[in-house]
Amino acid sequence: MSVKVSYDEVKATVKKAFLNVGLTEEQAETCATIHTQSSADGVESHGLNRIPRFVEYVQKGWINLEGKPELVKSCGAIENYDGNLGIGITNAIFCADRAMELAKEHGVGVVALKNTTHWMRGGTYAWRMAEAGYLGMSWINTESCMPLWGSDEPSVGNNPFCMAIPREDGQIVLDMAMSQYAYGKLGVYRLAGKELPYPGGFDKDGNLTSDPGAIEDSKRILPTGYWKGSGMALALDMAAALLANGNCGTDMDNANNGSCTGCCQIFIAFNPYIFGSKEEGQAMLNKRVAAADSAHPENPSRPVKCPGESTVERRKKSMEEGVNIDDAIWAQVQAIAAGDLNTKDIASK
Amino acid sequence: MSVKVSYDEVKATVKKAFLNVGLTEEQAETCATIHTQSSADGVESHGLNRIPRFVEYVQKGWINLEGKPELVKSCGAIENYDGNLGIGITNAIFCADRAMELAKEHGVGVVALKNTTHWMRGGTYAWRMAEAGYLGMSWINTESCMPLWGSDEPSVGNNPFCMAIPREDGQIVLDMAMSQYAYGKLGVYRLAGKELPYPGGFDKDGNLTSDPGAIEDSKRILPTGYWKGSGMALALDMAAALLANGNCGTDMDNANNGSCTGCCQIFIAFNPYIFGSKEEGQAMLNKRVAAADSAHPENPSRPVKCPGESTVERRKKSMEEGVNIDDAIWAQVQAIAAGDLNTKDIASK
Repeated sequence: MSVKVSYDEVKATVKKAFLNVGLTEEQAETCATIHTQSSADGVESHGLNRIPRFVEYVQKGWINLEGKPELVKSCGAIENYDGNLGIGITNAIFCADRAMELAKEHGVGVVALKNTTHWMRGGTYAWRMAEAGYLGMSWINTESCMPLWGSDEPSVGNNPFCMAIPREDGQIVLDMAMSQYAYGKLGVYRLAGKELPYPGGFDKDGNLTSDPGAIEDSKRILPTGYWKGSGMALALDMAAALLANGNCGTDMDNANNGSCTGCCQIFIAFNPYIFGSKEEGQAMLNKRVAAADSAHPENPSRPVKCPGESTVERRKKSMEEGVNIDDAIWAQVQAIAAGDLNTKDIASK
Repeated sequence: MSVKVSYDEVKATVKKAFLNVGLTEEQAETCATIHTQSSADGVESHGLNRIPRFVEYVQKGWINLEGKPELVKSCGAIENYDGNLGIGITNAIFCADRAMELAKEHGVGVVALKNTTHWMRGGTYAWRMAEAGYLGMSWINTESCMPLWGSDEPSVGNNPFCMAIPREDGQIVLDMAMSQYAYGKLGVYRLAGKELPYPGGFDKDGNLTSDPGAIEDSKRILPTGYWKGSGMALALDMAAALLANGNCGTDMDNANNGSCTGCCQIFIAFNPYIFGSKEEGQAMLNKRVAAADSAHPENPSRPVKCPGESTVERRKKSMEEGVNIDDAIWAQVQAIAAGDLNTKDIASK
């Protein structure tokens, strides 16, 4: 069951909740905006649904509200920050913005952040870079939640990779976790009594299955593209840890202190109009998007869309009709906003 | 049917063939090395198998043997080159090396190359960067050869994405096309009378299938991870064209002058030891690889491997036992080396 609540009411309630948890006015404003936007964009798993777990992590001391990004070292177009286990969202925004500053100066800018916490919706920072007119890339490493290809136990993170192309007529934003489905999505299908549209993992007997409950039981979620997403997840993990001089997935597995606590994140911004004019670039993008959107559809009622196009439609709908929220989650967030900090992690169930 | 031929004999024969086609001594030496290495590494599709098509492209004027990378503009840590439709391999090597030079100076270096030709095996340049001690990334855009998700006609390239992590005890190299299987691989399975291990596309009736011949007929090859690889392929296409101020996939579709002719390629090199020492970095990588390789295997006789590990094993075997080559391809290459330039494009069949 879900409710629809106006964007402004959601944001105000979330902000009140965050203030009660101890965030400063500025932190609460930023985090409320990002969580509300994520739900409005249809990414409920890392929007409202994630708030109880965020509060739990603050209470356990896994997130340090005083922690701020601290410059470790700078070298030309690349900088290294220690996130000091601060709030994942504010740390990541700071670093995405620094990458853009560096790109302004050097054409490309890279920030390698270590020792930070869950950035919530991965695409947030790629969208931010595209909206500021930069071509953006970002990725993260996490603790193991997915079997590597050939293994039957969780042995790599589903390490999301994001890529954003700034387009004035609609940003193109890829926000791609390395698992075919998120665990959150499996729960949604299971609760609705539905099979997944395509196999999403293996059951306990090692058979590829579309039964979400069987995958939740086995914990054998499928990497995107079988061996391909498995390999890319591992490469992203090592690249992030190496560049940021921080934790790899194995370190997080050993620490066992929640999802993404102490992780690394990489932010790359490119000035996209160094070699061609903005007019040329935008015209090329419009041509490419038009060609993609007019590719012959298998089902005439479902035209092809570029990454990000559905998100913009969903956002518009949420602004008009209200943001869709699971009612149990909404009750939790309202309770936190009313001062009851006894959170229950509904999202992870 | 295939033959096994010593690495040195293969390389010498390929070099002779390239000299007959009009390559200079230096071009022939470089290209013979790369094509032979690709076959020795098990990537026959872009090793020996691709030589007849390369020769055909030179004869058609789609590859310009005089074309060299020409600096269009430089800005800080990023440079733009025009490939002048020169040889894909030599153009790409030049740009990968420039990216490393830039990384030496700026911490990170980016080269955006436009108007180049097929780089053959994508992983070549990531391997090169890793072997030189750099963390490397590269990708390419191509003409449409794969339906976008939701379409039933080829509408995006399978745009390979590569990522290399320098590790002295064995490079970690991801070389990942955005289609689940290459067309070349479908042919291999069909000729062997085998089904694909996992569905690789849709048949003419729109059913997901593991029958390689049915996918060759429909041209509905499956993106890696369904909608995910489709979205990433499109994002890589636009990012490459925007950064390099060059052709997007749609331009190449309209030009209709062979695979990858006039494409863009992006090369990014990172100095991986700016923020941590080499010793720390290598120790972290060894720890991560050891954890991955010891993940509990589903099948005890098939241990988990990191990207690149199988390649190194295959390379070793090829050096010991000879390079595996399809006998029809070998006959073609030998004929070219003997001066018969009437090539037949066996590879694409």
